[in-house]
Amino acid sequence: MEVALTGRQLTMVGVALAVGVLLWPVRGAGAQTDAGRVVHWAELEIDPAQLPQYLAALRKEIETSVRVEPGVMTLNAVAVKDHPEQIRVFEIYASREAYEAHLQSPHFKKYKSETAGMVRSLKLVETEPIVLRSKGAR
Amino acid sequence: MEVALTGRQLTMVGVALAVGVLLWPVRGAGAQTDAGRVVHWAELEIDPAQLPQYLAALRKEIETSVRVEPGVMTLNAVAVKDHPEQIRVFEIYASREAYEAHLQSPHFKKYKSETAGMVRSLKLVETEPIVLRSKGAR
Repeated sequence: MEVALTGRQLTMVGVALAVGVLLWPVRGAGAQTDAGRVVHWAELEIDPAQLPQYLAALRKEIETSVRVEPGVMTLNAVAVKDHPEQIRVFEIYASREAYEAHLQSPHFKKYKSETAGMVRSLKLVETEPIVLRSKGAR
Repeated sequence: MEVALTGRQLTMVGVALAVGVLLWPVRGAGAQTDAGRVVHWAELEIDPAQLPQYLAALRKEIETSVRVEPGVMTLNAVAVKDHPEQIRVFEIYASREAYEAHLQSPHFKKYKSETAGMVRSLKLVETEPIVLRSKGAR
């Protein structure tokens, strides 16, 4: 089969190739860590009387999730300074599917049922990732 | 030298030893990654008209800091969903000294001066780390 291209068609092919080449490094850099990531944080207020039990359950849930679930990339739990009952959990999942799988995992369900009576309020703040960088992180 | 302990003193020594033994695994687990870490997040509102320029400067600053500064462990920048001008940067430093060194680094100072006219407000929320876990992170 022979293919005949007009001058205008050749120009369009050239432009498409140039755009592809220019965007390649951007795509490459993003794909390393950020592409498709689901990132959000949870804002929790815990019953102060049950804080030690809550923190023990949270620690266990986080350590298990990051160890056994391939799509759970980061779970960072902190307390707001001088407000130990104000907990924030910064969460990164490899994909929407990984996040859904996490919600269905036995360890997450166990944590949710164990801590249901300890959590006074829970708010999830969804985000659009801009740039996510950690030393040595996958 | 002879040491005579009363029954009450012996009880106190016993309690102190028991608390130490009970807390040992907690301390050990924390020491793996979290000991001495400085963790906070920044809440920024950016002038929408200058958002692309701001994001370019932020990206560059984050990538340089995590690459060249040994004590900058994590810089995760996100925008609140549906509020692209509301930026949050979740930050982990190896120590107080590492954070102070970051503030004095040439790339951070350059970012601060370049973006001074783009940032409408900036609030830093300090935290006490509870548990910090990331796949493959140092």
